[in-house]
Amino acid sequence: MSIVVVGSVAYDDVDTTHGNVVDALGGSASYFAVAARFFTPVSVVAVVGSDFKAEDRQRLAERGIDLRALEQKEGRTFHWHGRYHEDMNKRDTVSVELNVFDGFMPNLLADQRRCDYLFLANIAPSLQQRVLSQVSTPKLVAGDTMNLWINETRDDLIKLLSRLDILTLNDEEARMLSGESNLVKAGRAILAMGPRMLLVKRGEYGVLQFSKEGMFAVPAYPLEEVIDPTGAGDTFAGGMMGFLARSGRVSESSLRTAVVYGSVLASFVVEKFSLDRLFELTWDDIDKRYRAFIDLIDSHHARWITQ
Amino acid sequence: MSIVVVGSVAYDDVDTTHGNVVDALGGSASYFAVAARFFTPVSVVAVVGSDFKAEDRQRLAERGIDLRALEQKEGRTFHWHGRYHEDMNKRDTVSVELNVFDGFMPNLLADQRRCDYLFLANIAPSLQQRVLSQVSTPKLVAGDTMNLWINETRDDLIKLLSRLDILTLNDEEARMLSGESNLVKAGRAILAMGPRMLLVKRGEYGVLQFSKEGMFAVPAYPLEEVIDPTGAGDTFAGGMMGFLARSGRVSESSLRTAVVYGSVLASFVVEKFSLDRLFELTWDDIDKRYRAFIDLIDSHHARWITQ
Repeated sequence: MSIVVVGSVAYDDVDTTHGNVVDALGGSASYFAVAARFFTPVSVVAVVGSDFKAEDRQRLAERGIDLRALEQKEGRTFHWHGRYHEDMNKRDTVSVELNVFDGFMPNLLADQRRCDYLFLANIAPSLQQRVLSQVSTPKLVAGDTMNLWINETRDDLIKLLSRLDILTLNDEEARMLSGESNLVKAGRAILAMGPRMLLVKRGEYGVLQFSKEGMFAVPAYPLEEVIDPTGAGDTFAGGMMGFLARSGRVSESSLRTAVVYGSVLASFVVEKFSLDRLFELTWDDIDKRYRAFIDLIDSHHARWITQ
Repeated sequence: MSIVVVGSVAYDDVDTTHGNVVDALGGSASYFAVAARFFTPVSVVAVVGSDFKAEDRQRLAERGIDLRALEQKEGRTFHWHGRYHEDMNKRDTVSVELNVFDGFMPNLLADQRRCDYLFLANIAPSLQQRVLSQVSTPKLVAGDTMNLWINETRDDLIKLLSRLDILTLNDEEARMLSGESNLVKAGRAILAMGPRMLLVKRGEYGVLQFSKEGMFAVPAYPLEEVIDPTGAGDTFAGGMMGFLARSGRVSESSLRTAVVYGSVLASFVVEKFSLDRLFELTWDDIDKRYRAFIDLIDSHHARWITQ
């Protein structure tokens, strides 16, 4: 089954201690779509400016990503400039230029309004709400957010939460949204706000999944070198939702496998700048690392029954 | 099969942002022994002062821990004072008084020299070496160390490493010992120094296991409240070695299960100050949390075979 994703398609400047890129393809919807497309058809709802390069549109189109709702407007594409510390878990935003993204009013095409799987990437909760109201009977709705919306449009965000099946947040955002410094308490508090499931992204420490059924914890795949963590969270979401849409089942069991596939996709994207690693990736690469990932986390558990 | 542990038995002052204890039973050998004793017989080789309370000796003896080589000397027991930050991953050492531990010359009893399982808790590498040379044909030797020995007695430590089956370190120590900031590279570099297996303890983020066979990653059990992280690493080691000694098999598979049991024991000890939680723990508590832990990390993996 196909997925609709609403979010940003952007150009990023990324500085790290070992290199940098300028005007590299980025944006939450780009990362999400390319990752999810390994599993299932994906439609992107977003806006770009007149500077958006034909070759970038081409790279997405060649993957079979539906770009009919990727609007092109007069002006410049959304531009983000970030700088990572030596410790790649930390980054500073040097600048954000909304450009054509300012005033973005997402409009889904008729067939997109009948989609089963919807991902509301990190945009203003009011826009996420707008998109959600255009979709008739989605089977699964997932959403992401950030500190800005938690602080500045909290009421809008809270209203949205009860309509989400899955909310993704990083650990800092989970603490901010819940007001709890302990992550387990934070997870419980956020579940009580409405989403059926919460996925807390912890960067190099992996993902914590909270649901009424319990907790699931996966580490991140340990890598020898991380080049650029940008987009890891959206790539994770793309792999996770892609697997769910492909399997067509949403159960505790399929959700756990989905979280592993999301972690696998995320482990690739950080190996190069921008979407470079995703664009060269093959299904064979994914399958190999999935098996390595399962081996990484398989406890070979043999319970000691008698004392 | 039984385990011999050489390390400290101490009195600790522990300050946290929500409470404190003074002169509480602590020390690496104490935590290790009480945890391991849930699985198998344990002998403690250590030294205490004339101030060591009969009731503390009694509490250890009542668990069936062999204290014949717990020497009592004129003077004060080893004393450590630590203070945890709001973020419990960080702590400062306020003071360390070696007291009777200064000049400690461990001597194993005749039967202890024939032990199969030996744990060299965090003491000077030269003392660890001394103990190792007293043991005839151990089946498995594991050891712990700290930043002090890595910096000040590096040569002694390096010499010891090739004689260890398992080395336990925290992530900061692994980086320090290897000179690599990336943990995967650090792990590989340390394996090349000799130990057959490396267990990197990452506090609330769990454990990374490195061996020639590959990597194994487990999260820490997510807790709603952490009261006192002191001794978590030694308790982990106790649960891990305890399971191995009990099972009598050392394979990649049994080592992974052992790491989970270690993590389970460590998840209890931090719930109260000192060894309080370990002393009240039942096998039923351990078994329940082991099952919860397996549920926490079980990916229900269903590999997607066709593209």
